[in-house]
Amino acid sequence: MSAAFRELLETFPNPYPQRDYTIETICPEFTSLCPKTGQPDFGTLTITYVPDQHCFELKSLKMYLQQYRNHGAFYEAVTNIILDDLVAATQPRSMTLLGAFTPRGGIRTNVIVEYKKPA
Amino acid sequence: MSAAFRELLETFPNPYPQRDYTIETICPEFTSLCPKTGQPDFGTLTITYVPDQHCFELKSLKMYLQQYRNHGAFYEAVTNIILDDLVAATQPRSMTLLGAFTPRGGIRTNVIVEYKKPA
Amino acid sequence: MSAAFRELLETFPNPYPQRDYTIETICPEFTSLCPKTGQPDFGTLTITYVPDQHCFELKSLKMYLQQYRNHGAFYEAVTNIILDDLVAATQPRSMTLLGAFTPRGGIRTNVIVEYKKPA
Amino acid sequence: MSAAFRELLETFPNPYPQRDYTIETICPEFTSLCPKTGQPDFGTLTITYVPDQHCFELKSLKMYLQQYRNHGAFYEAVTNIILDDLVAATQPRSMTLLGAFTPRGGIRTNVIVEYKKPA
Amino acid sequence: MSAAFRELLETFPNPYPQRDYTIETICPEFTSLCPKTGQPDFGTLTITYVPDQHCFELKSLKMYLQQYRNHGAFYEAVTNIILDDLVAATQPRSMTLLGAFTPRGGIRTNVIVEYKKPA
Amino acid sequence: MSAAFRELLETFPNPYPQRDYTIETICPEFTSLCPKTGQPDFGTLTITYVPDQHCFELKSLKMYLQQYRNHGAFYEAVTNIILDDLVAATQPRSMTLLGAFTPRGGIRTNVIVEYKKPA
Amino acid sequence: MSAAFRELLETFPNPYPQRDYTIETICPEFTSLCPKTGQPDFGTLTITYVPDQHCFELKSLKMYLQQYRNHGAFYEAVTNIILDDLVAATQPRSMTLLGAFTPRGGIRTNVIVEYKKPA
Amino acid sequence: MSAAFRELLETFPNPYPQRDYTIETICPEFTSLCPKTGQPDFGTLTITYVPDQHCFELKSLKMYLQQYRNHGAFYEAVTNIILDDLVAATQPRSMTLLGAFTPRGGIRTNVIVEYKKPA
Amino acid sequence: MSAAFRELLETFPNPYPQRDYTIETICPEFTSLCPKTGQPDFGTLTITYVPDQHCFELKSLKMYLQQYRNHGAFYEAVTNIILDDLVAATQPRSMTLLGAFTPRGGIRTNVIVEYKKPA
Amino acid sequence: MSAAFRELLETFPNPYPQRDYTIETICPEFTSLCPKTGQPDFGTLTITYVPDQHCFELKSLKMYLQQYRNHGAFYEAVTNIILDDLVAATQPRSMTLLGAFTPRGGIRTNVIVEYKKPA
Repeated sequence: MSAAFRELLETFPNPYPQRDYTIETICPEFTSLCPKTGQPDFGTLTITYVPDQHCFELKSLKMYLQQYRNHGAFYEAVTNIILDDLVAATQPRSMTLLGAFTPRGGIRTNVIVEYKKPA
Repeated sequence: MSAAFRELLETFPNPYPQRDYTIETICPEFTSLCPKTGQPDFGTLTITYVPDQHCFELKSLKMYLQQYRNHGAFYEAVTNIILDDLVAATQPRSMTLLGAFTPRGGIRTNVIVEYKKPA
Repeated sequence: MSAAFRELLETFPNPYPQRDYTIETICPEFTSLCPKTGQPDFGTLTITYVPDQHCFELKSLKMYLQQYRNHGAFYEAVTNIILDDLVAATQPRSMTLLGAFTPRGGIRTNVIVEYKKPA
Repeated sequence: MSAAFRELLETFPNPYPQRDYTIETICPEFTSLCPKTGQPDFGTLTITYVPDQHCFELKSLKMYLQQYRNHGAFYEAVTNIILDDLVAATQPRSMTLLGAFTPRGGIRTNVIVEYKKPA
Repeated sequence: MSAAFRELLETFPNPYPQRDYTIETICPEFTSLCPKTGQPDFGTLTITYVPDQHCFELKSLKMYLQQYRNHGAFYEAVTNIILDDLVAATQPRSMTLLGAFTPRGGIRTNVIVEYKKPA
Repeated sequence: MSAAFRELLETFPNPYPQRDYTIETICPEFTSLCPKTGQPDFGTLTITYVPDQHCFELKSLKMYLQQYRNHGAFYEAVTNIILDDLVAATQPRSMTLLGAFTPRGGIRTNVIVEYKKPA
Repeated sequence: MSAAFRELLETFPNPYPQRDYTIETICPEFTSLCPKTGQPDFGTLTITYVPDQHCFELKSLKMYLQQYRNHGAFYEAVTNIILDDLVAATQPRSMTLLGAFTPRGGIRTNVIVEYKKPA
Repeated sequence: MSAAFRELLETFPNPYPQRDYTIETICPEFTSLCPKTGQPDFGTLTITYVPDQHCFELKSLKMYLQQYRNHGAFYEAVTNIILDDLVAATQPRSMTLLGAFTPRGGIRTNVIVEYKKPA
Repeated sequence: MSAAFRELLETFPNPYPQRDYTIETICPEFTSLCPKTGQPDFGTLTITYVPDQHCFELKSLKMYLQQYRNHGAFYEAVTNIILDDLVAATQPRSMTLLGAFTPRGGIRTNVIVEYKKPA
Repeated sequence: MSAAFRELLETFPNPYPQRDYTIETICPEFTSLCPKTGQPDFGTLTITYVPDQHCFELKSLKMYLQQYRNHGAFYEAVTNIILDDLVAATQPRSMTLLGAFTPRGGIRTNVIVEYKKPA
């Protein structure tokens, strides 16, 4: 399923691959469905990365994230999958994804996932 | 007693065991009974862990924590027991539990417990 | 049911019935059960009143409110019932009860109820 | 379309119709689709009402609002329709609905609609 | 000049002309040129109105406001012209426009303009 | 009992009885004993008054309030008694006393009492 | 002296004399000299007016205010003189001037002056 | 004693007696001695007045207030005396003096005094 | 004297002596008497410790601290004595006591004392 | 294109090249066009640098940044280009550029680029 979503991610050539620099992208309107109850979940995703040859294009990121709107996924899985998809699409030097989800049943969850390019 | 509670904790396979990542779960609606007076106590539990093969499922965590609603326990014991139960259920790479309890008799108490998987 | 709870409310003679004055009591640890799901609800009750011949005693108020701990009740009903019980017990010159409940399913509710002694 | 959605709204008898009191319900997770672009919109709805014979049930309100998740609607229309549906379902003494929507194209919009039962 | 800009404003039929309600639209990205120096000016426009038969469409409002990007105009004139254009396009029951402009030469200016439909 | 305490209150002649003016005195270190449990209570007293012929002297006020340190009293009674004592000692044109007490058993109480000299 | 300063104030025709509207101009960089010590004073001037046939031009206002840089003037005098000059130049329907001066010798001063066109 | 202090207050002619306007002066560095203990007291004085024929000169106000540095005075007296001295020196149309004193013995006091010129 | 107070401290067996964990207890209602003036002092005590075989029981801690209510002690002495008593009662692996006292004569004092079990 | 823009940047000799010190320049009115949609983008640029022999002149920086007003550029490219231009013009010892752009499609982006002079 992620394979189909991942294809939506478009990139453009990093305009400064010769330099390590940081891009931080904050997406406060992420929503998916709980795989157990079918109820909507909401959260804020914060992506921080050092690009290598590719940057993700924001409109395509938005389209990619909207695929989860009617898709069931656990917080832990969806945070890891999105990191994997973003890593696969952009092959960054490093990337961190923080998923901060709104409370459910009085319980609030954050998931923090990191990727570092092998040396 | 904890043995019975512990059985309520359900897990699901960690979707990314090949990667170290962090899950932070905040439960502001914890309540139990004081073992001396029988009066209700209230507190916020914050669980931070790096999962290994298993993650705890949030609905079952909620059900598990609700067992303490009519159960008498000292702050120190309950914080340690909950950490033990969560460690037993999920066998994480590491886990920290912070219990921050509301004031009683004008005195406020926090308990901080940590677990690290033996190498 | 409320009849039984109401009996727990103790009062003491208003030490200054000859004077209109205001007592504000804030109870941030109210908890009851949702009558549909059986799940715990949490909230803060704020009682503001001008006593006539009786004041409610705080320890008995606490005992009274603890009766709702394992009792199912809708927010609207419980707020009105508690006001009625407090009015029945203390016969105040006026009383307001604000119930501010924690979010459930991403939705948060406040209920505001007022009583004024007929002239 | 609204007719079908409206049927999801369940009510329960107002436990205190003999008394004017106020219920305030805050829904920060409202989402619908823009009817022109098909893109998701997000907002917070705040409903304040004095019930007459009926109160809306929160779980059914949540289900009702979730119908808009994949439904196209202008802010102005959706705010008025939801007020109409809530008024039709509960026949309140009065009701106000504030829709506060997140920015689109750098522009942010609030819509405020009121209903008062004819004397 | 405004005549040409004004044509960009699109409206849609007010979905609830039978009811007085309020729409508040906040545009923090307004920019025009100073007619004396040719330097860019920046400001936030806040439009508050009670629609009659027409509402302005937000995308067309954005396009309309972007026409001022390379257009020279005094604060006082531009605020009045935009109110006139919005009134001409939507014929509202009432409308207020607040223009809050960023400092120039250490001096900051707000302009507040109101329209009320003649009885 | 209060009679003995009251004698500790010293006054000095109001230096400007010909003029209505306001004195506000805030005492955050008030402590007394709960008459039921013998446990200490803590609170902040705020006295606001328009003096007539007498002002209370601050050091004697402090000494007076310290008498409650080992004295049992309900919040409602102690707030009214202190107002009465201060009124008896200073015969003010008007006086308000706000007692804000720290939480006990998770419940917090404020008492507000006013006095106005008969015309 | 003011006469010479006043000539620096330029106006432009009010683009909407047919409508009462409000212009608020905030000048945080006003500086003059203390007439007694020759030391610089600093302050923020806030001008709020309803224009009639003329608006003051901001660049000329800046030039006008800069004349006070090496000019000795008491706060009270300078605030009144500037209001007079602005009134003389623009003949507004009404105008308020608030001068808020920074502390000198540990003492801070505000001066508020108003003008209303005779009916 | 105040007679001697009062002579230090210098005034200058109100530059705009023909107009009612407001001057607010804030003096955060007032210090005097407690007449009972000889200990220093600290406070902030805020003077707000509508001048008639005279304004007080700030440097002389500072000199005047410094006389209290080694002078014993009750809060209530000193606030009234200073108002009287300022009224005597400037004969204002109206004046308010707020004295806000720092805590002593854990008790904090504010004194508010007003003067209005007889009609 | 302290010997008698110390006997009030009750402990219970540390439920997890096999694990190093941290207990933080905050007591904002500490009050004692100044040994020179006999006047009450107020402060907040924060105790942080890693228990060994014993934890102190909170109700007994409260009773123990209340003994200082009518007891004269310097800040430095009382902070050290309380640490000694808590160490004697619980024999912890380590303990820190922070005493933060309210201002006296415009001066505020904190005392920090630490204990570490000899290896 | 940047070559032409870059020529607008003027510098002046660093008055203290013998010392490492930091200059921080904040430009909250940066605007360019999205290269995909032609729509305006807005952002705040924060430049922090340790100058070597040259400092950039602020008026020329403003003129330089205004060139982007009607120029299409991705966030990542424009941030890197501006850093390069500023580095080329001033040859600093080090420089950081933070571009914080306003939300588009509910997504907000920051770009952080650093330069360090080779040893």
